[in-house]
Amino acid sequence: MESNFSDNVIEIERHLRRIAVTVRRRGRMSLEEYSITPPQFDALIILNQSGDLTIGDLSNRLYLAYSTTTDLVDRLERASFVVRQRDPDDRRVVRVRVQPLGQQVYEEVLNARRAYLASVLESLDEPVCNNILQVLQLLNARMTDR
Amino acid sequence: MESNFSDNVIEIERHLRRIAVTVRRRGRMSLEEYSITPPQFDALIILNQSGDLTIGDLSNRLYLAYSTTTDLVDRLERASFVVRQRDPDDRRVVRVRVQPLGQQVYEEVLNARRAYLASVLESLDEPVCNNILQVLQLLNARMTDR
Repeated sequence: MESNFSDNVIEIERHLRRIAVTVRRRGRMSLEEYSITPPQFDALIILNQSGDLTIGDLSNRLYLAYSTTTDLVDRLERASFVVRQRDPDDRRVVRVRVQPLGQQVYEEVLNARRAYLASVLESLDEPVCNNILQVLQLLNARMTDR
Repeated sequence: MESNFSDNVIEIERHLRRIAVTVRRRGRMSLEEYSITPPQFDALIILNQSGDLTIGDLSNRLYLAYSTTTDLVDRLERASFVVRQRDPDDRRVVRVRVQPLGQQVYEEVLNARRAYLASVLESLDEPVCNNILQVLQLLNARMTDR
């Protein structure tokens, strides 16, 4: 498949990809403190954003097998990051719910990313930082349009 | 843990995170054509970047259990995306190697991301696009510094 994109597009995609990898890697360092793996953290992100989910729904969102997701939830539950909760209206349905410790690790990872970005930005002048923010706002606004 | 970051940093982290999620989601659409899951694609990215790896090394890089990684490689091998290859110097060592079809899906996902970004950028004037590229170049340069 021949690539027929402008150099600008190719470069912008490459920069966005590298920035995303670098920022995520920084957030991961704080995962190690909690002995939580990135796939387990992905589960916490999804549960934080979507609310309580069944193992089936969670496995679909993680694109992992049901059995792999069950193991992953077992580990998160033993470490008190999540809890399995039975639906009061239908006792056959069990959902996974984030616990305060799971919320805490989620926020600490975001704070680790922020601390890293703060260190990256601190040597830049305010107009440059404002320009960075404006460019990212513009990209985001255009992306949610389509 | 109280957040004591500037509004700029908080906003920049949030925008970068949303942009990364959106761009990745676009790339994923082409994964479905190949019936490949995101964790399988993560394995292809790692193998493309690092060269051939043992299952043990690959499972460490994916943060998945050895048995989960073995299953994942079995599926990628059955679909001809990768092949297991014995080390000619040490026949006990087996490494996973990307095949042409695996390289192809990797490039198609990047091209899907590029096509999406091209559609996002096409309504913007050239000076605006150049400014976007400059900002991303600057961020990346600062990030690889530290």
